[in-house]
Amino acid sequence: MTKRLNSFVTSANSRDTEFPLNNLPYGVFSQGDHTRCGVAIGDFVLDVAALENQGLIDLGQPLLQSAAWNPVMDAGSDIWDQLRALLIALLSEGSADQGAVEAALYPLAEVQLLMPFTVTEFTDFYAGKNHAINVGTMFRGAENALPPNWLHIPIGYNGRASSVVVSGTDIYRPSGQLKGPDDTLPKFAPSKRFDIELEMGAIVGRPSSDRVSVDQADEMIFGYVILNDWSARDIQAWEYQPLGPFQSKATATTISPWIVTKAALEPFRCETPERDFELLPHLKDTGPMLYDIDLSVTIAPKGSDASEVVRTNYKEMYYSAAQQLAHHTSAGCAMRVGDLLGSGTISGATKESRGSFLELSWGGNEPFTLDTGETRSFIEDFDTLTLQGFAQGSDFKIGFGECTGMLLPAK
Amino acid sequence: MTKRLNSFVTSANSRDTEFPLNNLPYGVFSQGDHTRCGVAIGDFVLDVAALENQGLIDLGQPLLQSAAWNPVMDAGSDIWDQLRALLIALLSEGSADQGAVEAALYPLAEVQLLMPFTVTEFTDFYAGKNHAINVGTMFRGAENALPPNWLHIPIGYNGRASSVVVSGTDIYRPSGQLKGPDDTLPKFAPSKRFDIELEMGAIVGRPSSDRVSVDQADEMIFGYVILNDWSARDIQAWEYQPLGPFQSKATATTISPWIVTKAALEPFRCETPERDFELLPHLKDTGPMLYDIDLSVTIAPKGSDASEVVRTNYKEMYYSAAQQLAHHTSAGCAMRVGDLLGSGTISGATKESRGSFLELSWGGNEPFTLDTGETRSFIEDFDTLTLQGFAQGSDFKIGFGECTGMLLPAK
Repeated sequence: MTKRLNSFVTSANSRDTEFPLNNLPYGVFSQGDHTRCGVAIGDFVLDVAALENQGLIDLGQPLLQSAAWNPVMDAGSDIWDQLRALLIALLSEGSADQGAVEAALYPLAEVQLLMPFTVTEFTDFYAGKNHAINVGTMFRGAENALPPNWLHIPIGYNGRASSVVVSGTDIYRPSGQLKGPDDTLPKFAPSKRFDIELEMGAIVGRPSSDRVSVDQADEMIFGYVILNDWSARDIQAWEYQPLGPFQSKATATTISPWIVTKAALEPFRCETPERDFELLPHLKDTGPMLYDIDLSVTIAPKGSDASEVVRTNYKEMYYSAAQQLAHHTSAGCAMRVGDLLGSGTISGATKESRGSFLELSWGGNEPFTLDTGETRSFIEDFDTLTLQGFAQGSDFKIGFGECTGMLLPAK
Repeated sequence: MTKRLNSFVTSANSRDTEFPLNNLPYGVFSQGDHTRCGVAIGDFVLDVAALENQGLIDLGQPLLQSAAWNPVMDAGSDIWDQLRALLIALLSEGSADQGAVEAALYPLAEVQLLMPFTVTEFTDFYAGKNHAINVGTMFRGAENALPPNWLHIPIGYNGRASSVVVSGTDIYRPSGQLKGPDDTLPKFAPSKRFDIELEMGAIVGRPSSDRVSVDQADEMIFGYVILNDWSARDIQAWEYQPLGPFQSKATATTISPWIVTKAALEPFRCETPERDFELLPHLKDTGPMLYDIDLSVTIAPKGSDASEVVRTNYKEMYYSAAQQLAHHTSAGCAMRVGDLLGSGTISGATKESRGSFLELSWGGNEPFTLDTGETRSFIEDFDTLTLQGFAQGSDFKIGFGECTGMLLPAK
């Protein structure tokens, strides 16, 4: 089993840090007015833009000078490997450049984290089987829970790139057209059933202009983030037939501030589950392409401590991001650097592993209780929702940072 | 009634030209290796990048030097007005700068037209009532033709910006998962029911970060294009439940090469139709925001002349682009410069005014006959489809150029 790599940054050598030398996730940070690319290591962020300026990182061309990781993605996977190798060398115990590197470290507690990349287009999937069964059972009954296509294709819909924000961004409760079962006409009002969806996001780092295989798709993925697909269930219920979710998903989509690269997650690959039907050749599993990543959600009402309300794992998914991406290109759809694919809500088989309030409260009919004694069916104003995830190694873990946001009242 | 403005470019003074001085549509052209912004006038394209370099067009900052109209949009509506006034002055009969302007004219027949702008995100609507009734009747019967929400909100779904191509681009027949009514399992095969959708596209020229009114939305629109939302009906039938169209619409979306500005279309504004239900305040009509634009589709099988198969008008729509855009922002969705909104298929009440083959052949059950004697249910390989549109003034017309594409066999 992969062991922890040790760094001269001692906080990176703790069993508990999210950011050991094995991780090296990519973000964008600011301190004062200066915004630049950074890499998390222990309790610090490394100013890699400065190191590139000093010549300590040389990728053949300046790639770290814009406040986004898209230029690195665009440079291709040889550069991805080169940069990771360089960073490991620079930050390792016994690094020849320890002094210069230390001068480029900033305490994480003192910086602001911004969007790590520019989202080109955003696609959201519906590829968790427990989630699809739960939602389907609520809406159509247990007999018809899974739509007929569900076991053959990773169902997805195009989302809205302009909705994607970084962790920490406040979210305003949206308004929209709502029509209750007893209303004769719809009204325009604030959503009463505002929800989270616990997801992982895969970032497309290489473009394609035509259909790609599952293996090619896996190679195109640069890294992963934790993703909260905020969802207005009552807006969705009224709008989604026949063409799918639209404004119900357009308010905001929060991502974690750190892109964990595919390279860092390599030791945690795992198989997709057993198939109910053999997948068609263009989607067939060709190797382990899910990841063993523990995920959790906490909710903190205003002025209260956080209660954990969800605990699940990314390996619960039925389709990998590579399969989703292969399907995405199947009709010739061009993919571009910076495209973001949401996994779909990640729910386990047990009640406490359900990745949305819709499932946790069974459509609002079974409110659940927080540690504070309060109950919730959906999110209330001033609740702070925090999604987290990490892959657990033998003596280290790989984290993504918090994916958090507070819900403010409707404007 | 608005009269034709006369230009020293005599071909612009014909009753039949699409590009009189009243129009001045914006495109991007290349001749040799040089790609730049151009404006159509009669049989010519005016190299406005060159005129800006020479100082004959001065907008306070260089806005015409990139091969896209996004910088002009981004500069705001005062600049839009300023540029139009400058162009009218430069190209009018008696222009003081006739010599310099003539030196920047290239025959349209000798240039290649490229994408006129960079598409930020693409949204497609379903806002034509006849189309929705036709499709709904085919799929759900006449009693349930319109979904319950249809008369209250302009139903839309997020499309794929990477699918948008300029007129003249060859389209490859897509493959995808298909499952016929008698198949027990889906197969992956070329689409057999590949179709057009005759639409107008509205281009968002001003950004918004929050909900906008219908009036504000109308002000945000920069101009319009003709749009063909190529659609694989058999892929759509299998994939679209429950989250809407995805790969069925991802192969390509063709737009006309010329953006006709809102200013040029001003004389042709007309009202939306009578409402079945009063719209909620945030969507209510506040003035004439549709346009009287005649639209047609021709099909030319390989080696044959084109047959006109559709003739309709943009004023058939139930919702204006401004209403669609207002709805698009209703849950707080940010809009950006370069966002493209497809109107939805534009069908009239008569058979020959149906804007898709799905409707013309009534789901493939009633093949229609071309002038050549051939019949069609859906598009066949090597068919060339051409969409056109123009607004008819007293002694001039405002055109968009052809929105055309040939279907090539599946790869």
